[in-house]
Amino acid sequence: MQLIHGVAELRQALTGAPRTAFVPTMGNLHAGHIDLVRQARQAGGPVVVSIFVNPLQFGQGEDFERYPRTLDADCAQLEPAGTDIVFCPDVAEMYPEAQTFQVQPPLADELCGAFRPGHFQGVCTVVLKLFEIVRPKVAVFGKKDYQQLHLLKGMTRQFNLDIDIVEAETLRADDGLALSSRNGYLSPAERAEAPRLYRLLKACGADLCAGQRDYPAIEADAARQLAEHGWRVDYIAVRSQATLLAPGADETRLVILAAARLGNTRLIDNIELNVG
Amino acid sequence: MQLIHGVAELRQALTGAPRTAFVPTMGNLHAGHIDLVRQARQAGGPVVVSIFVNPLQFGQGEDFERYPRTLDADCAQLEPAGTDIVFCPDVAEMYPEAQTFQVQPPLADELCGAFRPGHFQGVCTVVLKLFEIVRPKVAVFGKKDYQQLHLLKGMTRQFNLDIDIVEAETLRADDGLALSSRNGYLSPAERAEAPRLYRLLKACGADLCAGQRDYPAIEADAARQLAEHGWRVDYIAVRSQATLLAPGADETRLVILAAARLGNTRLIDNIELNVG
Repeated sequence: MQLIHGVAELRQALTGAPRTAFVPTMGNLHAGHIDLVRQARQAGGPVVVSIFVNPLQFGQGEDFERYPRTLDADCAQLEPAGTDIVFCPDVAEMYPEAQTFQVQPPLADELCGAFRPGHFQGVCTVVLKLFEIVRPKVAVFGKKDYQQLHLLKGMTRQFNLDIDIVEAETLRADDGLALSSRNGYLSPAERAEAPRLYRLLKACGADLCAGQRDYPAIEADAARQLAEHGWRVDYIAVRSQATLLAPGADETRLVILAAARLGNTRLIDNIELNVG
Repeated sequence: MQLIHGVAELRQALTGAPRTAFVPTMGNLHAGHIDLVRQARQAGGPVVVSIFVNPLQFGQGEDFERYPRTLDADCAQLEPAGTDIVFCPDVAEMYPEAQTFQVQPPLADELCGAFRPGHFQGVCTVVLKLFEIVRPKVAVFGKKDYQQLHLLKGMTRQFNLDIDIVEAETLRADDGLALSSRNGYLSPAERAEAPRLYRLLKACGADLCAGQRDYPAIEADAARQLAEHGWRVDYIAVRSQATLLAPGADETRLVILAAARLGNTRLIDNIELNVG
């Protein structure tokens, strides 16, 4: 496994590689990331994992500074998983000048976009740059960051990027909590409370599957239950899988998305449903 | 020479081509475009010329509808110039869905950006898409569209596109008028008046080379002279070649840019100067 810090060196290493598969990460890896690497290996070409904590996608007062940098531990997981190249540029390598050109995505005021101004613009911009550097044939993203995945699929399609986006299911702890680098911020008490988010999403899903269609009532009831247990809820929303907007009257492929805070830690999760 | 309308067909035709050179155009070609093709041939790979009148870069009330579509005449010029592929997609091929992802460039309120809201966002977005479709090693743009060239160089650099941007000098008629597809809109009287723009730019350049540094006075005097001869002036501006902003005190690499209208026709031109 090669550890590469520079854009030019990475391009050199990948010259002539026909079916590169790419897993962009911010490091502090867990089993969910390693599962993305496993799926990347199925493309049959070299597997490149990037580790870059992207300042562009963090807002004022967010956790850019304290986001864990754990390169040695990350590499110790990536090598046995079959990673060929770890690309870990520093900020000056990715942004040698102020990034005055950015990707402007839609849905900026929806869901997480409403609570993290500029976040998805920063995500789309860095992923476009990484795509141009790595030039993969396949890129793998997890469904846990559902809005991010939706936007990156849209960007790939609308910018005519010749890349297959592979969507990976969310990995969960035994108690249902979605694996996330940010789980490490939770106190023991918060960690014990955290699985409620997924339990509630499943309960909402059961209501929808049983024929309930009063989305605002379902959303408000779930938010109230979280608040009663000490969460600060950003949103719980029933949306169309296809558009991430409010579902049309006869739409059957739904997704329930939630973002809520326990103490200083913001957790997100979602479940897909087919209510047809 | 192949004429190709579809993205998939173009990608197929270019499979394995190592050093594709690309000239994006809106058609209605003149000798200036053919000179871009000549420079593209020097890259040594296949030469692709795109012809696409991009609705995204035209504002309300601009000339999208009346912009001349002259495909047969264009091809008759491109074939003897050594073009290998003409890519002429229709609007539905380039925009099969609403283009909700766009490139947001800087300098949107400067120079032509101030008079054509959204124009450079549309230019950068379509050029990024065309770059992803064609995947050239080299792309050739003319200096006549100076702000466009500046932005496309910046986009290429900041998005890590692995493309060499070749800058081609402006071709001019014998009387100095910069060649432009929009010259065809001019009446005979307007055509006789049009070379004044370049003459004035050269006079301003002579003043700068003679040591004049009162940029606002130079700009205002030139604008007044144009207005006296029936032009409606959008701007005449002395700028830094490096930033397209007002030059710093000791900046020597300058460019004078102008946009002005004769009747309904908007003409642009510029000259570069080294006053060091």
